[in-house]
Amino acid sequence: MPPSPGAAPLDRVRIVLVRTSHPGNIGAAARAMLTMGLERLVLVAPRRFPDADATARASGASVVLDGARVVDSLADALAGCALTIGCSARPREFAGDVVSVRVAARQAHASAVRGEDVAFVFGTEMSGLSNEELASCSTVATIPANPHYSSLNLAAAVQVAAYEMRVASQGDEVWQARRFAAATHEEIEALYAHAQSTLVAMRFLNPRLPRRLMPRLRRLFARAGLEREEVNILRGVLARIDDILDGRRRP
Amino acid sequence: MPPSPGAAPLDRVRIVLVRTSHPGNIGAAARAMLTMGLERLVLVAPRRFPDADATARASGASVVLDGARVVDSLADALAGCALTIGCSARPREFAGDVVSVRVAARQAHASAVRGEDVAFVFGTEMSGLSNEELASCSTVATIPANPHYSSLNLAAAVQVAAYEMRVASQGDEVWQARRFAAATHEEIEALYAHAQSTLVAMRFLNPRLPRRLMPRLRRLFARAGLEREEVNILRGVLARIDDILDGRRRP
Repeated sequence: MPPSPGAAPLDRVRIVLVRTSHPGNIGAAARAMLTMGLERLVLVAPRRFPDADATARASGASVVLDGARVVDSLADALAGCALTIGCSARPREFAGDVVSVRVAARQAHASAVRGEDVAFVFGTEMSGLSNEELASCSTVATIPANPHYSSLNLAAAVQVAAYEMRVASQGDEVWQARRFAAATHEEIEALYAHAQSTLVAMRFLNPRLPRRLMPRLRRLFARAGLEREEVNILRGVLARIDDILDGRRRP
Repeated sequence: MPPSPGAAPLDRVRIVLVRTSHPGNIGAAARAMLTMGLERLVLVAPRRFPDADATARASGASVVLDGARVVDSLADALAGCALTIGCSARPREFAGDVVSVRVAARQAHASAVRGEDVAFVFGTEMSGLSNEELASCSTVATIPANPHYSSLNLAAAVQVAAYEMRVASQGDEVWQARRFAAATHEEIEALYAHAQSTLVAMRFLNPRLPRRLMPRLRRLFARAGLEREEVNILRGVLARIDDILDGRRRP
């Protein structure tokens, strides 16, 4: 089903797998897609599909498998796309301009934002896309890899492309842990004053030879960015030391 | 074996897998690592290793499996590291600062360049790292994902982290297809002059009403960046049209 006219950019991106041999890889690719919010899968002449292995490896991403379109030819898979990105691991003599998958994802996002449909195309597990298949794509993209061992698993390549597509589209904002109330300037200065007094009382800091102890402590806590509760904990520790020192002085 | 003092940044990065259940995932992670040039794998209390499934899924990345270090505790796995990056898909209340895997990879590269050892740490397939394990890492990183389906396969997560580590370290330069000799300015101008003359002779272009045909053709070919051989092919086509027109005029 084509995306609606106002579809979100990620809904305009289809992943095309050409002549995939192992249905498990189709399932793993579906899972990789859905983790990044891509749902449109097109399979060109898969050897076996649907298949129990595909379902097992999809691990809950059945919405992608259930909606997958199976077609006979790459031309059918690419119909309606304004940008078709053929992914190739190995160098090809007649590839024309080759871009990294990061750059390709940015181009794909720009195209999708203009309301155009986009395809990322992946070939077989053993040999990738044929030269003829690659030539029917408008752009060739590749994943930067170890030149001595560049064979990403098919689903791993789909994962990286889908990940770059998500980052191009949504940025790389991630979840944040809950933030607690930050300590104020006065609270932090009171902590340093307290710490200095206790460190002197402990005879750890000699007020006539202070060296760089307090600046180092300031630097450390400034880097951490103190929360109010943390200041309270540290002052509690200092107060406990003060008590012990008082007890020693007055046995 | 620790890296030598002058080791390349990627050699300072270890991938730590904690209590992995399925040896196949260890093999797939090893393959993912080697595609990005990472070779140092540390396994904390794996359920089964070595194992035929691990070897099969590693698909040639046996150098990583053969060199893998098996240890009993996360502390052993992290010994010697200045930066320890715990990877977590799900939000954790006490995580402190959380960064994207892209940002974490940049920090890891900066640390490795300073000669420090770095670890990316991944938990179990089912539940990831425990809160205690995560708390023993200095940084928490996460892979941007679909909030409704964020469960990347373990090896897929390792693939994305290793990929970002490679890009942080080597940039995203990719192989380029062979470039052919570019056409010179004069050759291209001669092509346009020839094209214009032939298009007039064909009565496709009216020289008194040129409209925007020639500028559009210039724009198209400028975008493509013409090679010398392509200019020769196009001029060959034009010359053939000229011949046909000549034949018509002199039957």
